[in-house]
Amino acid sequence: MTPTIIAFDADDTLWHNEPYFDEAQERFCELFQDFASKQEILGLILNHQIKNLPLYGFGIKAFTLSMIDSALELTNQSISGQNIAKVIQIGRELLQKPVELLPEVESVLQQLNGKHKLIVATKGDLKDQHRKLHDSGIGHYFHHIEVMSDKTDVDYKKMLGRLDIEPNNFVMIGNSLKSDVLPVLNIGGHAIHIPYHTTWEYEKIDFEINHPNFKSFENITQIIPLLTN
Amino acid sequence: MTPTIIAFDADDTLWHNEPYFDEAQERFCELFQDFASKQEILGLILNHQIKNLPLYGFGIKAFTLSMIDSALELTNQSISGQNIAKVIQIGRELLQKPVELLPEVESVLQQLNGKHKLIVATKGDLKDQHRKLHDSGIGHYFHHIEVMSDKTDVDYKKMLGRLDIEPNNFVMIGNSLKSDVLPVLNIGGHAIHIPYHTTWEYEKIDFEINHPNFKSFENITQIIPLLTN
Repeated sequence: MTPTIIAFDADDTLWHNEPYFDEAQERFCELFQDFASKQEILGLILNHQIKNLPLYGFGIKAFTLSMIDSALELTNQSISGQNIAKVIQIGRELLQKPVELLPEVESVLQQLNGKHKLIVATKGDLKDQHRKLHDSGIGHYFHHIEVMSDKTDVDYKKMLGRLDIEPNNFVMIGNSLKSDVLPVLNIGGHAIHIPYHTTWEYEKIDFEINHPNFKSFENITQIIPLLTN
Repeated sequence: MTPTIIAFDADDTLWHNEPYFDEAQERFCELFQDFASKQEILGLILNHQIKNLPLYGFGIKAFTLSMIDSALELTNQSISGQNIAKVIQIGRELLQKPVELLPEVESVLQQLNGKHKLIVATKGDLKDQHRKLHDSGIGHYFHHIEVMSDKTDVDYKKMLGRLDIEPNNFVMIGNSLKSDVLPVLNIGGHAIHIPYHTTWEYEKIDFEINHPNFKSFENITQIIPLLTN
């Protein structure tokens, strides 16, 4: 494989992310434990997130607004101002979490550096993803960061058009089969799946992928022989 | 002037925006008129917006969260869930406003079409700006849209690096001297100011600009002779 551009997903591919969301949701569940079970509350947040996607898109601000919607529904709008402030604080703290790189990420980037054009292609809040790339200390390995409003076939097509690159010269590396793999294969690109130990419910798919342009590795270091031969 | 890339700001340059925010703030002020004067409430929202910029950035989700912060402060956290829901609804309606082009915008784009690479360079929510460009009906005139997390010198430098273009071949057209003109002149680019009849307090500057790379026009049609000769 001799790709011109290698794109890395960010959250849970380059650095830890989902555990911070899990922890935030835990705190939310504790705050409203008198109103419903943890399972019910988690389901409610997910429903509000999915309902809000067309208007809010992805990212922590959308998540915060979905938590507030969930709190209003849980309490039948009898929530106190103090608890609204606590929910907002959960979101604000998420936006300030330290960026902790996944193992071997920097070593892999060092080995690819100068051999390919590397970019970051991620969903989420624009400001937040720029902040995290800056704080990560690995920003200098990347030509730039593409914060995408979604990761559908059309979004990838637009991105490749903008980068002026053929799909066959593009490889996407990420932890989500739904967002990082399927749409890229659909438009004729290459995709490498590197699973993270936990996946957001929304990103799960329940079938297997077999495709000549697809690989799945347990460890990010395994991409090196494929991309440097 | 023979620029390679002509970038247009979006809000209040291509389509109306600020009046929608003004209307949203009016509704917020009415909702909390028992707590403070309109002037005080507008000042409070602005303070929260500026305080929240480093974490939330620009856009309607940030604005909604800043309205909630303002409502909590105004009511000393005694706000009802019903009123929180009303504030969120003000934000949701902002995200669904019709996109109304400014006069002559489409005619100007038609005349520049094919002669230059045209892009949109805007702040705001990623999803929202993509939605507006789509709904505007003028998306096909542009190579792509750059949603920027801010419009400082550094942000423009990064964008030009990504677009692989020299500042001297870049012209930015917009209604904000602070965001669309000053930083672009600072990095060696060209800038054209086309004022809108109302400006967000945050974007105001109180000095005049004199610079060989700077022009100010009352009407967007005036850019045509400059850019097509």
